[in-house]
Amino acid sequence: MDDIISLSHGSGGKKTSELIEEIFIPAFSNDELNKLMDGAVVNINGDIVISTDSFVVSPYFFPGGDIGKLSVCGTVNDICMCGGIPQYLTLSFIIEEGFKIKDLKKIVNSISFTAKECNVKIVTGDTKVVEKGKGDGIYINTSGVGRLRYKGLGVEKIKEGDSVIITGTIGDHGAAVMTGRSNIITSKDLKSDCAPMINLSNEILNYGEMVKIMRDPTRGGLATTLNEFIENSSLSILINEKDIPINSYVKSACEILGLDALYFANEGKIAAVVDSSVADELIKNLRKYEEGKNAAIIGKVISGHSGKVILKTEIGGKRIISKLSGQDLPRIC
Amino acid sequence: MDDIISLSHGSGGKKTSELIEEIFIPAFSNDELNKLMDGAVVNINGDIVISTDSFVVSPYFFPGGDIGKLSVCGTVNDICMCGGIPQYLTLSFIIEEGFKIKDLKKIVNSISFTAKECNVKIVTGDTKVVEKGKGDGIYINTSGVGRLRYKGLGVEKIKEGDSVIITGTIGDHGAAVMTGRSNIITSKDLKSDCAPMINLSNEILNYGEMVKIMRDPTRGGLATTLNEFIENSSLSILINEKDIPINSYVKSACEILGLDALYFANEGKIAAVVDSSVADELIKNLRKYEEGKNAAIIGKVISGHSGKVILKTEIGGKRIISKLSGQDLPRIC
Repeated sequence: MDDIISLSHGSGGKKTSELIEEIFIPAFSNDELNKLMDGAVVNINGDIVISTDSFVVSPYFFPGGDIGKLSVCGTVNDICMCGGIPQYLTLSFIIEEGFKIKDLKKIVNSISFTAKECNVKIVTGDTKVVEKGKGDGIYINTSGVGRLRYKGLGVEKIKEGDSVIITGTIGDHGAAVMTGRSNIITSKDLKSDCAPMINLSNEILNYGEMVKIMRDPTRGGLATTLNEFIENSSLSILINEKDIPINSYVKSACEILGLDALYFANEGKIAAVVDSSVADELIKNLRKYEEGKNAAIIGKVISGHSGKVILKTEIGGKRIISKLSGQDLPRIC
Repeated sequence: MDDIISLSHGSGGKKTSELIEEIFIPAFSNDELNKLMDGAVVNINGDIVISTDSFVVSPYFFPGGDIGKLSVCGTVNDICMCGGIPQYLTLSFIIEEGFKIKDLKKIVNSISFTAKECNVKIVTGDTKVVEKGKGDGIYINTSGVGRLRYKGLGVEKIKEGDSVIITGTIGDHGAAVMTGRSNIITSKDLKSDCAPMINLSNEILNYGEMVKIMRDPTRGGLATTLNEFIENSSLSILINEKDIPINSYVKSACEILGLDALYFANEGKIAAVVDSSVADELIKNLRKYEEGKNAAIIGKVISGHSGKVILKTEIGGKRIISKLSGQDLPRIC
């Protein structure tokens, strides 16, 4: 095996076969993938959930994860957010000529490990290689398919009095990628929250019709996600700054850089709107999991101010929180 | 709307919403996509086919097509090759900062047109933007899901005496991309064969168990695909050069450049192995379609020479044709 990726590895010829047989098959082996067809045949009955995401995170190794883990969690979580149980993933690489095979192996192992953790199979894939200077190391697309567990999610279900919850601290992924990218902020505590949301989303879905909508607040952060929940409504969302869980080092990093963690990407959190009658019990159940230990009710749906998200600050003032405008931090996922 | 893509268009915030609402929704509008969830819910019963491909073709506009048309045809064709009926596509963009919105619209229209032609719906998607110099205009991933029509395809079904067919002229896509990329060869006749293979694959699948395997010979060309069919077998494939359909201008281009069209990518052709008892009738049926008018039997499966593809040249000699080794032409799809 070579040490670096060359254009031949993307040719569809001998070198591509070598890559598949020596790196991908050993890592992901399953009956469907091993057939090496142009696609895979799987069995799912009834309603299915489909999702896709391309990952271009920079750097591709960051504190608490890497592009491989992220690319599995990202698509798995999107399927969960639609009320699905993730089952199968496709995996497609765009690799820059000169990329180290050693780094590719590390990323592939991370994908394999996370896929097993999520109980999803990688059933088909694709590899393209672009010339040096036409990429940035590695870009990954995963698309996923899963069985639908619950069909009733939708922003139109949100009503006055509903509770707004978050399953843990905000901004960890954004802060970790920033740490990985520069030497401005360094802290051994700053780590991405990148994780599969299978357990937590299942706990939430146990409440059936009491659950109105859920989403993982990735790019654009919690502020953008809450805006997406309410933007076409006559109602509004009021959140309390003091109730929003945030790690102290994320808070410090934000203060130093003049950035707002409400707009930082999360890769292992769920924001949801649920009927207030079940909110306390749900939070208790979410906190049983390590990844949900900081789950909290952070606000509620109120009448008036149609389509707005309002933040009650720690000192008691109120301000409107809009969707992310511009771009604080590119290439976050 | 801006004139060029900026990093903000990939932020997940306001500019991303603008792109979705002003460009993607008008082009692809359907009930599932319009919900703007993290994924889409669709209904398929029983066995489904999943496929994925990332497209990095350079240039992204080439004679006879563009990256948009290619990205729909590529995944649609892969699903067909697995015996499936394509139904739903996901669509994911990695766009370089500074890309012209006008070009994006052209590509999006091409995707929309081709998807309608293929009767597939684009149900969910993703857009990432990378800094100038970290991409090359636009890369697209499509993943697809479809209903399985016929389950019995597999290289292990190939037996001695089977006929090897190709549904038309070889090498057109490779030659067209080369034309688009340089001024060495220019001809108004050189055009990509990029097209959906839905009609032709359905005709082939009408023969049920008489069909052993089919594949679209894209990267690596016909030579590599035939090798993939037979490489693990005790049998071999003998093809006759004189029977392989090729456009005269593709042949000339190859002669001038010293390249072999057997290794050139095709994006609108099927290579298949079928029982010899149905081969003549099948060719007659394929020729009824414009895209199959040059369909031909090009060889047969013979005993001995285990796992090899042998070419009988026009002057009567024989040589072994191996898989593509190295890389004649990168970024072909």
